[in-house]
Amino acid sequence: MELLFKDITVITMADDIMYNACVGVDKGKISYVGKYKPEFEAERIINGVDKLLLPGLYNCHAHTPMSLMRGYASDLDLQDWLFNHIFPVEKKFTRDITYAGALISIAEMLSCGVIAFSDMYFMIDCIARAVDESGVKANLSNGLTAFTPDFDYFKDRCYTETAFVWNNYHNSGRIKADVSIHGEYTSFEGAWHQASEYAKKNGLIMHLHLSETQVEHDNCKKKHGLTPAQIFNKHGVFDSKTVAAHCVWIEEEDIDILKEKDVTLVHNPVSNLKLSSGVAPISNCIKAGINVALGTDGPSSNNSQDLLADLKIASILQKNHTDNPTSLPAYEALKLVTVNGAKAQGREKESGQIAVGMDADIVMLDMYSPRQAPVIDPVASVVYSCTGRDVELTMCQGRILYEKGEFKTIDIEKAIFGAKQAAKKLGLRIC
Amino acid sequence: MELLFKDITVITMADDIMYNACVGVDKGKISYVGKYKPEFEAERIINGVDKLLLPGLYNCHAHTPMSLMRGYASDLDLQDWLFNHIFPVEKKFTRDITYAGALISIAEMLSCGVIAFSDMYFMIDCIARAVDESGVKANLSNGLTAFTPDFDYFKDRCYTETAFVWNNYHNSGRIKADVSIHGEYTSFEGAWHQASEYAKKNGLIMHLHLSETQVEHDNCKKKHGLTPAQIFNKHGVFDSKTVAAHCVWIEEEDIDILKEKDVTLVHNPVSNLKLSSGVAPISNCIKAGINVALGTDGPSSNNSQDLLADLKIASILQKNHTDNPTSLPAYEALKLVTVNGAKAQGREKESGQIAVGMDADIVMLDMYSPRQAPVIDPVASVVYSCTGRDVELTMCQGRILYEKGEFKTIDIEKAIFGAKQAAKKLGLRIC
Repeated sequence: MELLFKDITVITMADDIMYNACVGVDKGKISYVGKYKPEFEAERIINGVDKLLLPGLYNCHAHTPMSLMRGYASDLDLQDWLFNHIFPVEKKFTRDITYAGALISIAEMLSCGVIAFSDMYFMIDCIARAVDESGVKANLSNGLTAFTPDFDYFKDRCYTETAFVWNNYHNSGRIKADVSIHGEYTSFEGAWHQASEYAKKNGLIMHLHLSETQVEHDNCKKKHGLTPAQIFNKHGVFDSKTVAAHCVWIEEEDIDILKEKDVTLVHNPVSNLKLSSGVAPISNCIKAGINVALGTDGPSSNNSQDLLADLKIASILQKNHTDNPTSLPAYEALKLVTVNGAKAQGREKESGQIAVGMDADIVMLDMYSPRQAPVIDPVASVVYSCTGRDVELTMCQGRILYEKGEFKTIDIEKAIFGAKQAAKKLGLRIC
Repeated sequence: MELLFKDITVITMADDIMYNACVGVDKGKISYVGKYKPEFEAERIINGVDKLLLPGLYNCHAHTPMSLMRGYASDLDLQDWLFNHIFPVEKKFTRDITYAGALISIAEMLSCGVIAFSDMYFMIDCIARAVDESGVKANLSNGLTAFTPDFDYFKDRCYTETAFVWNNYHNSGRIKADVSIHGEYTSFEGAWHQASEYAKKNGLIMHLHLSETQVEHDNCKKKHGLTPAQIFNKHGVFDSKTVAAHCVWIEEEDIDILKEKDVTLVHNPVSNLKLSSGVAPISNCIKAGINVALGTDGPSSNNSQDLLADLKIASILQKNHTDNPTSLPAYEALKLVTVNGAKAQGREKESGQIAVGMDADIVMLDMYSPRQAPVIDPVASVVYSCTGRDVELTMCQGRILYEKGEFKTIDIEKAIFGAKQAAKKLGLRIC
């Protein structure tokens, strides 16, 4: 056995919480989960007293290169922020800049227990390079925007990049190509058909923004007489496995559609609050049987990628939104970033639970601190008291990527230097 | 000079952000703030490149000993949680248990940059001992509850404890005795008069809960024909300097009263969301000129005392609540936990800003991490990207209490052991 966690509390997310348990790792897989120490020798034993093991976390909606603009142009009106600040800077992004932004974001996520993310951006071949080097899992999509009918998706950058990621990484499994329609309001139906057909034909996941703001939602109804969910459904967009981010303004009928088409809703509570977009009705969606996952959204509208911090906000926000403190209880909440996230990425058979045969995608939390002791309810502790600060170890496919503040696959000094240089090239004044 | 921070970014909260600046500390006070290195030799020099200095943080509404029940009985209805779970355990609190709970909370707060807190609990003489040993500042009050007219505040435990803290610590300045009326719904007017007179006569601050829940607010109106703010005002409760926690359901007229009587509103956004209490209208209150501070509330209804994490939530929640992403911008938000907090505790002449002559109450953040780099806007970074994790050093009155994970005044292993033992004595199963 390569590695054994011993005497540790394990939240398996397979409906079990084990105390003083053992978890073994071999050849990238979880090879043992049990009450007693297995008989084989282990090359390394990690003493799990006062530690807590749970499945590695899934951040299901991100725009990782935007870390380079974190904190830039804060507290502005959405249109002003986007059109006068973010878009002009984004136009200056080069391949190296995109890589630098993705890499520093991945380091941040690793230090917060995240082992997989779903990204929607551009130059995704550069993002794939950062993912490849760092050892995490990611589903990468190029967010298609198409404002005129002469825009031909299948001849443009989106296709080229998607095909590149697909051809070079997809089959290995750790990095996957998704297809993306950025949103209803940033494209037209011809592009939806092309993208959907492409996703369907090749068995790829569709990743899109859906009813994020009231303006977007209402304009769509004015224009088409249908909500974004209804018009996408009408045009067959949901015929591929789909991940829909935000869904703040979805209506009863939309919920029925998402359920029927098995669309995953990715909740982004921090970004939605920060941009005054509203609160997505995820408690209702969970009750309706929809798969709900969690995302940080881009670091420019969050401005952090600490998924555990956001998980707490998701849970307490639902309690207030539904006027019911029993809403989205801790264990239900924890599903968002584990099993539900794995399902959103099409990885539910390989990840999201601590169980024999699964990939060893694991995060270990250190509960020996004044922020946690005494631990009375481990699940409540993870959801309401832990943040990325409490992450001691992050492992993906059996490989330790982060441990006790150290990055094992990323030269962090170089990555920080690279991010600073990239921001300077974007014309941003850094201090 | 005892200590010099050199080449550091300083958010002074005296309307200035300085880059590559120097800050000197001598005899517990800030002795130098300037662009250039002072001429005197310093016993210790801290290199401030990639660091950020700001005033030490104020947590203005806490119930520190409740850390021992953190995570216990989560996700329940408020009444069930309080009456069937929290109150029965609280009855078992002894002096040693109260001390252990306060001490572990203070350690948590120190590791999150908090140098002062306002506590409302019982056995406050035991809390005072933990505060005294650990070196932080605190305003301590015994939350008076009085359900029957024969309850004589001035002969009971509340008075004895308050007087003890007052006699033993108050004049030294670091630990202060406040007076507290727990809330309108947990007492009657005879008790309000006694407590108010006592506070007024002795120049003590009044700390109370106000309009936390809709039920509390509406019941008061039914009973008295007045809101809690109106009835307290009528009975002279606000004639002493007052700190009112929550204020979720205050009305227009209440805002006028709080402004007129210079009452500080302490916002507790995380606890309010977690218990489904609602969102306090603090943007309106700030516009009306009310002093607004921030509190974590007790660790049983939060369940953390990471004030920077809560500050982000306060800001983004107001943006959504007011449907305006420009609400409670970063610098305004930062006032809540610095200058406004100092004012809430009557310490605005000695603390809350980095300025010569002020107490050296300082927190230093480490911005050299993938969570922060590149720093484009230091204030936005602190409010939206930093959490307690980024705190490298916490100093109160020139004394370093926490640095790089180490506690200088608290034996943290003993404190964690003490907290675990105390939880066991309370009959809580810990893991």
